[in-house]
Amino acid sequence: MRIVVDAMGSDDHPGPDVAGAVLAAQEYGDTLIVVGDEAALKRELAQHATNGLKIEVVHASDVITMEDKPSVVGKSKPNSSMHVGMNLVRDGQADAFVSAGNTGAALAVATLYSLRRIPGVKRPALSAIIRVRGRSVILLDVGANADSKPDWLAQFALMGDIYAKSLLGVTRPRVGLLSNGEEEGKGNDLVREAGPLLRALPLNFIGNVEPKDLVKDHADVIVSDGFVGNIMLKSLEAATSMVINLLREELMSSVVTKVGAALSRPAFKSVARQIDPFETGGAPLLGVNGVVIIGHGRSNATAIKNAVGQARKAVQGGVIESIRAGLEQIEQSGQSTD
Amino acid sequence: MRIVVDAMGSDDHPGPDVAGAVLAAQEYGDTLIVVGDEAALKRELAQHATNGLKIEVVHASDVITMEDKPSVVGKSKPNSSMHVGMNLVRDGQADAFVSAGNTGAALAVATLYSLRRIPGVKRPALSAIIRVRGRSVILLDVGANADSKPDWLAQFALMGDIYAKSLLGVTRPRVGLLSNGEEEGKGNDLVREAGPLLRALPLNFIGNVEPKDLVKDHADVIVSDGFVGNIMLKSLEAATSMVINLLREELMSSVVTKVGAALSRPAFKSVARQIDPFETGGAPLLGVNGVVIIGHGRSNATAIKNAVGQARKAVQGGVIESIRAGLEQIEQSGQSTD
Repeated sequence: MRIVVDAMGSDDHPGPDVAGAVLAAQEYGDTLIVVGDEAALKRELAQHATNGLKIEVVHASDVITMEDKPSVVGKSKPNSSMHVGMNLVRDGQADAFVSAGNTGAALAVATLYSLRRIPGVKRPALSAIIRVRGRSVILLDVGANADSKPDWLAQFALMGDIYAKSLLGVTRPRVGLLSNGEEEGKGNDLVREAGPLLRALPLNFIGNVEPKDLVKDHADVIVSDGFVGNIMLKSLEAATSMVINLLREELMSSVVTKVGAALSRPAFKSVARQIDPFETGGAPLLGVNGVVIIGHGRSNATAIKNAVGQARKAVQGGVIESIRAGLEQIEQSGQSTD
Repeated sequence: MRIVVDAMGSDDHPGPDVAGAVLAAQEYGDTLIVVGDEAALKRELAQHATNGLKIEVVHASDVITMEDKPSVVGKSKPNSSMHVGMNLVRDGQADAFVSAGNTGAALAVATLYSLRRIPGVKRPALSAIIRVRGRSVILLDVGANADSKPDWLAQFALMGDIYAKSLLGVTRPRVGLLSNGEEEGKGNDLVREAGPLLRALPLNFIGNVEPKDLVKDHADVIVSDGFVGNIMLKSLEAATSMVINLLREELMSSVVTKVGAALSRPAFKSVARQIDPFETGGAPLLGVNGVVIIGHGRSNATAIKNAVGQARKAVQGGVIESIRAGLEQIEQSGQSTD
């Protein structure tokens, strides 16, 4: 397998990006293609023991930053590491693309300038893999479409279902529709219109779900429009870090609890690992005509390596082909998502 | 002051509701009016030492349950404790109404059958008081309006601002608009249209905010439509309880960490108190023509007492008058929220 890593993606690029690619080459034995400023990447690679590893460097002269406007940068920086890297996948020279860069820019470059959409896909969706007690739950869309239509949500459900099967190995993923109450009839206009569309699809649709259902192992895939999914994801992150920080501070506030904190450290570490976003790798951009995984800007080498691992699984699981086939099948059976 | 407590509201009514009213009568010295099945309430009151306390019982023959449909129950149970209790406020026989009952029903009864809206208010908003590190942040709307319009959000901002001044004592509350990114231009259509309306109002409007801004003490009032606010609130609750439960379980998993847990107990207790939703009391229904505070269905006596305390503050702060005056002022100055 040949996997592209955008070496100019993370906040501290190219250090973590290159180190992650090296780790991935070691662990998986695949060919890793690092894309970015050639001179900088060669300097960076020289710091690692790469003997026997399959690592290639491809030059890209432009760098997309976190501050770049997605609506502008797709056109204004045509030789960015995102363009060059995704084009390798588009042209069949690589199997997947991984970046810890600007999510909006990756979406714009993929959709408008490089890989484009899988035929039949109305809108790509950014999918978050949320770890809860060792399980993974897919939440989508978490930001690609701030205003969604009911038939887009139906497609998000289909794509999430397929991804859950290939990534999580769930035979019949439970697909829920995020709402402000579980009873049918609850929801905003979008949710109430999308419900019947999801019910008509060949899915294990469990109806409306609430945020607590994520925690309670009631759903494998949670479907939402991009604005609401983004707020949910960020609310979960904000509350998690707040509680952990509060406990850390409190534990440090007296001698007795300091001792308690020392003894409790393994428990804290275990919990931190269970909810560590870096462990999951990244967010797949589903609906794009090629495997694209977007990591967090703060990714370290391990996070990049895990994102590559996730990309491999998506390629091995034939996610793109499955989404294409799934959409075709529904089209032919007349169960349109319109 | 005379405050009505819906004695048939909480999941375990009338026990916690009556006990909470008794606690409130003790602590505040106000007249507490408990509304519900008279015989049951008298039996319940007989279990408490009420000598010297000002507690009145008013009979209501219907009981609204958590399962009752808000759209139906306003009409089908005209003698419910909610109707009877709110009518006491409407008719000037009491100053505020507190219930731990069905939120949707309380909204319907208030808006359509009893107190009605403050003149000029387009839609009432349910407001959550979220405790973060000892501060309180007001998030509204958290569920009254699943589909909101930009000018409603502008009114929510005004009402939240007034409530923050009277309840939290903040001179110039920082009012933020919940969005999927802080930059101007981020958001869904609703947020992008509401932004300029909020900016035109006489508020300390700080622009778009994200869930993390709640935790980081960047805002006192966060404005959102009812669907998104509800998802945010429930996501915060879900993540908070998950992290705490995970830590508890992990701490109990080995002897060493069990000792750590014992020593860490004060820290856990302190954190639990800092984020305890029962400490804040309840959610005010802003925009209704009378003070209405809705508590959680799981409210215990302390939660009911705290909800009464919150109702007192709203009455003392003249929240209803301030909202009326604020809306009139804007109307006259031509800074309409349309």
